[in-house]
Amino acid sequence: MANLSNIQQEVLYIIQKAADSLRQDQHFDTVQRKSNRNDLVTDRDRQIEQYIVQYLAAKFPEAKIISEEKTSSLITSVEGLVFFVDPIDGTMNFVKCHDQFAIMIGVYQDGEPLFGAIANVMADQIIYGGPQVGTFLNQTPLPTVPDLPLVDSLVTISTRLLWQQDPNYQLIVHASSGLRVFGSAGIIWSRLVCGQQNLYISKLKPWDLAAGRALAMKNGIMVRNIDGSPVNMLQSQTVIIGTKCATDEALSLINKRA
Amino acid sequence: MANLSNIQQEVLYIIQKAADSLRQDQHFDTVQRKSNRNDLVTDRDRQIEQYIVQYLAAKFPEAKIISEEKTSSLITSVEGLVFFVDPIDGTMNFVKCHDQFAIMIGVYQDGEPLFGAIANVMADQIIYGGPQVGTFLNQTPLPTVPDLPLVDSLVTISTRLLWQQDPNYQLIVHASSGLRVFGSAGIIWSRLVCGQQNLYISKLKPWDLAAGRALAMKNGIMVRNIDGSPVNMLQSQTVIIGTKCATDEALSLINKRA
Repeated sequence: MANLSNIQQEVLYIIQKAADSLRQDQHFDTVQRKSNRNDLVTDRDRQIEQYIVQYLAAKFPEAKIISEEKTSSLITSVEGLVFFVDPIDGTMNFVKCHDQFAIMIGVYQDGEPLFGAIANVMADQIIYGGPQVGTFLNQTPLPTVPDLPLVDSLVTISTRLLWQQDPNYQLIVHASSGLRVFGSAGIIWSRLVCGQQNLYISKLKPWDLAAGRALAMKNGIMVRNIDGSPVNMLQSQTVIIGTKCATDEALSLINKRA
Repeated sequence: MANLSNIQQEVLYIIQKAADSLRQDQHFDTVQRKSNRNDLVTDRDRQIEQYIVQYLAAKFPEAKIISEEKTSSLITSVEGLVFFVDPIDGTMNFVKCHDQFAIMIGVYQDGEPLFGAIANVMADQIIYGGPQVGTFLNQTPLPTVPDLPLVDSLVTISTRLLWQQDPNYQLIVHASSGLRVFGSAGIIWSRLVCGQQNLYISKLKPWDLAAGRALAMKNGIMVRNIDGSPVNMLQSQTVIIGTKCATDEALSLINKRA
């Protein structure tokens, strides 16, 4: 059985080291396209991933590691201790803006969230936590996010979903305080747990979801699969993330039109 | 005739004082709705506006002052020296997130841009400049923004325009590197002049436009009225702001569908 305190210590150590390295030097040599024109990977993504994966593998040899750029091998079960690693979340922002990108590490035990950490690299902030420890920004405990209604919530909905006709996600934007689009799931997670916005709907990969889902559990932020099925940590899925009241209202708007 | 060096000194003095005050204390007592549910004004907007307007009026008694919250009287001509003041641009962000809001002061002489300053309050950054002085971030000259094509540009298009069918602004997003929505014109101006994004399309009021238009002129960022008519500093208008290549391509996409 994993020692939570040891996991927390090692994850926070390596994510801080990786974030410091990226903040101090944002140089990259190569940039390549992946699934589409705007899905990028640089040599720095691969370098940071290798750095984190090698460290975790040495400290936790019994664990599986699922990582975005596939430094690790294929994983088909969430049994045991599993680390999810996203070395640079928001690579487009890393390449174009040199801000608004994140590093994410999520830790699960037999498929259940144990611990998560997200580094907002350029803001020099690390949010972390889990169901047993609560939610922290750097060393400070974060208060539970107030359960505001949708009308008082800023929302993020991925542009791919916004263009859809059915269901019409624009209805949710119209019922909210406004749309915000940052181009990084990690940045949005940090804004959700700090109460700066209350809703996020997007198709997310396991490494986009794992850390935030674990660290936000005690903070008033819930994660649901948009189709009502259980969250599956081995595949992509469209999730609705936010405070209870805002997510309930958004789901009711989606289902009314379905 | 206005003394540009004196104007620059006084504008930078008062915008820094106002920004420091807001950064150190984001408390507000009242929040009211204006033209619509999400168009907010707080007592701090009015307080900061009064502070800036009174200072400028005392230093430049001959000038007209056009300000968002109407501390000043109605202005019907841009003749002479005119200051445009937006005390808190992105009041929704100020209220909900405590970041991503700006203070803007634009200075025009007989309708022509002379000087502009924008404070990204929580980042403690002031961008400023004008056609005669160039563009600066804090005290550092900013290089001209590279004239990237639309495909390599992050873009902001206001949500109101995004929902329109004709012209279909979504075509511009599809042809770009991606959409970003921050909820503050001042924040987007600062990202444009720093080369973090290359295109911005929105219906802007004079005080949303004045400072950025003046300070970005030597920086490779141009402002055009979307309908081809001259920019009018006494009314709202839909403008396209960005590097030449990206704006040309976006205008051609809009006109192709018209």
